[in-house]
Amino acid sequence: MVSALRLPSLTSLLYPNLVRRYPAALRRRHSIRPLLASGFSAQSAASSPPDTVDRVDNQKSRVQDRVNSDQVITPRSQDFNAWYLDVIANAELADYGPVRGTMVIRPYGYAIWEAIQEYLNVKFKETGHSNMYFPQFIPYSFIEKEASHVEGFSPELALVTIGGGKELEEKLVVRPTSETIVNHMFTQWIHSYRDLPLMINQWANVTRWEMRTKPFVRTLEFLWQEGHTAHATLEEAEKEALQMIDVYTKFAYEQAAIPVIAGRKSKVETFAGATKTYTIEAMMGDRKALQAGTSHNLGQNFSRAFGTQFTDEIGQRQHVWQTSWAISTRFVGGIIMAHGDDAGLMLPPKVAPIQVVIVPIWKKEDDKTGVLNAASSVMEVLKTAGLKVKLDNSDQRTPGWKFNFWEMKGVPLRIEIGPRDVSSESVVISRRDVPGKQGKVFGISMDSSILVPYVKEKLDDIQSSLLQRAISFRDSNIVDVSSYEELKTAISSGKWARGPWSASDADELKVKEETGATIRCFPFEQPQGSKTCLLTGNPAEEVAIFAKSY
Amino acid sequence: MVSALRLPSLTSLLYPNLVRRYPAALRRRHSIRPLLASGFSAQSAASSPPDTVDRVDNQKSRVQDRVNSDQVITPRSQDFNAWYLDVIANAELADYGPVRGTMVIRPYGYAIWEAIQEYLNVKFKETGHSNMYFPQFIPYSFIEKEASHVEGFSPELALVTIGGGKELEEKLVVRPTSETIVNHMFTQWIHSYRDLPLMINQWANVTRWEMRTKPFVRTLEFLWQEGHTAHATLEEAEKEALQMIDVYTKFAYEQAAIPVIAGRKSKVETFAGATKTYTIEAMMGDRKALQAGTSHNLGQNFSRAFGTQFTDEIGQRQHVWQTSWAISTRFVGGIIMAHGDDAGLMLPPKVAPIQVVIVPIWKKEDDKTGVLNAASSVMEVLKTAGLKVKLDNSDQRTPGWKFNFWEMKGVPLRIEIGPRDVSSESVVISRRDVPGKQGKVFGISMDSSILVPYVKEKLDDIQSSLLQRAISFRDSNIVDVSSYEELKTAISSGKWARGPWSASDADELKVKEETGATIRCFPFEQPQGSKTCLLTGNPAEEVAIFAKSY
Repeated sequence: MVSALRLPSLTSLLYPNLVRRYPAALRRRHSIRPLLASGFSAQSAASSPPDTVDRVDNQKSRVQDRVNSDQVITPRSQDFNAWYLDVIANAELADYGPVRGTMVIRPYGYAIWEAIQEYLNVKFKETGHSNMYFPQFIPYSFIEKEASHVEGFSPELALVTIGGGKELEEKLVVRPTSETIVNHMFTQWIHSYRDLPLMINQWANVTRWEMRTKPFVRTLEFLWQEGHTAHATLEEAEKEALQMIDVYTKFAYEQAAIPVIAGRKSKVETFAGATKTYTIEAMMGDRKALQAGTSHNLGQNFSRAFGTQFTDEIGQRQHVWQTSWAISTRFVGGIIMAHGDDAGLMLPPKVAPIQVVIVPIWKKEDDKTGVLNAASSVMEVLKTAGLKVKLDNSDQRTPGWKFNFWEMKGVPLRIEIGPRDVSSESVVISRRDVPGKQGKVFGISMDSSILVPYVKEKLDDIQSSLLQRAISFRDSNIVDVSSYEELKTAISSGKWARGPWSASDADELKVKEETGATIRCFPFEQPQGSKTCLLTGNPAEEVAIFAKSY
Repeated sequence: MVSALRLPSLTSLLYPNLVRRYPAALRRRHSIRPLLASGFSAQSAASSPPDTVDRVDNQKSRVQDRVNSDQVITPRSQDFNAWYLDVIANAELADYGPVRGTMVIRPYGYAIWEAIQEYLNVKFKETGHSNMYFPQFIPYSFIEKEASHVEGFSPELALVTIGGGKELEEKLVVRPTSETIVNHMFTQWIHSYRDLPLMINQWANVTRWEMRTKPFVRTLEFLWQEGHTAHATLEEAEKEALQMIDVYTKFAYEQAAIPVIAGRKSKVETFAGATKTYTIEAMMGDRKALQAGTSHNLGQNFSRAFGTQFTDEIGQRQHVWQTSWAISTRFVGGIIMAHGDDAGLMLPPKVAPIQVVIVPIWKKEDDKTGVLNAASSVMEVLKTAGLKVKLDNSDQRTPGWKFNFWEMKGVPLRIEIGPRDVSSESVVISRRDVPGKQGKVFGISMDSSILVPYVKEKLDDIQSSLLQRAISFRDSNIVDVSSYEELKTAISSGKWARGPWSASDADELKVKEETGATIRCFPFEQPQGSKTCLLTGNPAEEVAIFAKSY
């Protein structure tokens, strides 16, 4: 594999440590591959085209510092799955755990999850929910109480059968979701209409014994938040379920820059135990759909199974109406797959663990102190302004290597500071989302009154540019279809198909079997006019979106 | 039980709903009792003395509004354990889960945990640690790798033996702590000295199959943070272990107002797998010790068991030196037991979910709007100033009932606003920590420029007053002993004994057997001068603290 390292001799001479440390990254890459659950193919790193980084300072004196990158990422355009796994390994987002299908979320990946948490946690509180915590062990008998729930979840349960050295009398389920235990507790807390609505949320781990796993997207254990609410009326529960899918939709658009399509699941795809499931569906870079968040109107299914009742204003006992809603670490996978490119990750500034990376550049030892001091003070200025900044002042790596590395890590903005920048008290700023010279601006003053607003504006630009790009991509890959033939053509060309649908559940399953596509949702936004079911020709009330999905 | 309700007729007439809703609270109290793992005795609510609330407005016109409280809390002075469980049930901090020994953390209790998290999370990051997440399922073989670790933990493991409907080939341990899986991963991430130190933390749930459980203090599943670090030298690891016990100590003093005693555990009490364990020991209101946080120097125990090695600067392979450190939801129990009194919880302002409760008071319907408007605007003023404020504007309860309720919930400050306060644009402020008239101040202007600094100063006063009170209590309950007889006398009178100790592990176990006390720690703060072991009369280097503990 060392032959993949095509380092120009100048760089090797100046930065001998580069070669010394590199094999570690390769080993990591190899260590992750054999652990794959299913056969994602690996591309040879040597087949990747060398990347080029130009460094031109603002005094017009050109310093050519061409560096072949340590390219270990399979190009996305070549093999999407291999690219995804390479990005996760190389950007140090996650690693495989020792138990099949489990995942270790590494600091850089976890920081993206923290950004998701910070935003949603505030929104949940603003909309009247309180955080709390339920035990993860659920008596097996609880799961059996709601008929469709047990049917949906029993194949994927992890069961604790031994505790404290003894065989347990009743097996314990490691929670796959918490509706059952939540209802068990709600029966103790809800007595009258004055105890309603009861609106809570928990941040927790859940376990589902999935057979085909993929980091972030589908793992045996994952992290999520699950909201659970109880209401006096169906209308209130419906309003809550819709409110929460709306919170998720706003998060997706405004923070993650993912233009999800929000809508209602078909009966076939509805959550085990819900009367209605709302969903946000995201288009990934390979045009497969990712269910990125769901909100369920549970009706009285669980309250009837558990006897969760309240006394209403006229003294009658009633079953509560409930909702539940969740977003998980799967969303991190969605962010990776929605925005990345051949060079690696591309993170929207609002969820990026590092928004700005500063790369100091010096050749002569004499220049080092001045450059590093300037870089430090720029870092302080930006940090004080509330930005997430990393100064990469290591002298183990060339600037070119650092450029590639931080691009691969998806950092939205790079600031370069060399000796001439120090003299002119200015910096060079490069955007991750605009490659090469077009994304590079010279001579931005280091003065905080100029630099800070400039950087903030650029980050905002990148945020909206990523969203706009994703919207264009999405819209150019959704085809309106009016017949099953058109649907099949759209799906087989990798696109999403949108068409009127009023056929049966059996027909829906037939479409899945024949095309691999499922109904992702009946979108909230519906076209005007009368509609005819694409399959049966019968009148249809709504269009559905069909797609292959993760 | 309804006979316990001794409501004066005036109140009953004015607030008929009070009686209507009350039985729910009683039911809750009863529902919690039968689930107790061991026999904590319950006191009759009827035996509690009625509480008295005086309401005197600032215009010298006295309005006597005596209300017997809904006393359902066993007085602390009467039965500490029953009081603790009553407070947890009535302040709605937690409830029992359906599986023996598990606990549901309710919103008010969880908010205390969130306050702990918010403070520590910042400190961990400031000291160079990154958050991440490890899977909770650990192959059974991992636990067996470190000899003392398996010995310490194997009796309390929960084991998953069935996954996805199939018997597993290898049993999975639901993590009791993560040193083993952390080391398994560290071997993949650590290659050279340049990868060190590796400093991470995770917020997670852990499971220990405890036989005698008690809410917050010892539960089958609990929440915690566990820090794990790897270093190139023993000295660095030792420095880190000490740094983190120092972070915990500062947290305990400055946020939780608990004057813990920090020190080193004896060999007998050292963590299974550590070479040294540092601890913070807190004195509870019943003078039992609570181990409130620990930090371990793991030496090379785990790195040798797992082969976690690095190449040092001269090219030699070395095992890393490690630490781990944790604080858990047990700390919430510590806060309850350190500060509460007969009336219920007493929360230090810095960890209180509600720092100020506003109780509006009106008798005539005419006054209601004016009072509620004033109360709302006071709330807004305080919220804008960053304070956690609750306005209790329910008309289901008397002001007197509300006073008792929020005292029981431990809210540090209460603001009362009546019609005369509205006219004079002032409020009445009462301190939770100073009962009756002494804690009450009249005529504080509603003007934000006066009210906000006044409230902030009072909260600071309460914070330091709780700490001072706890220091006095602690110091008056630690006895310096120089013989085993003196130790036995101190312990049997419920106090802590501090005396020189250089006897054997066997002697230490004998003391435990004969007195019920264990060595809580060898405190960092040691008295000057030469010392003689209290048991053997041999020279001793240090004093140890002995106490009964949770």
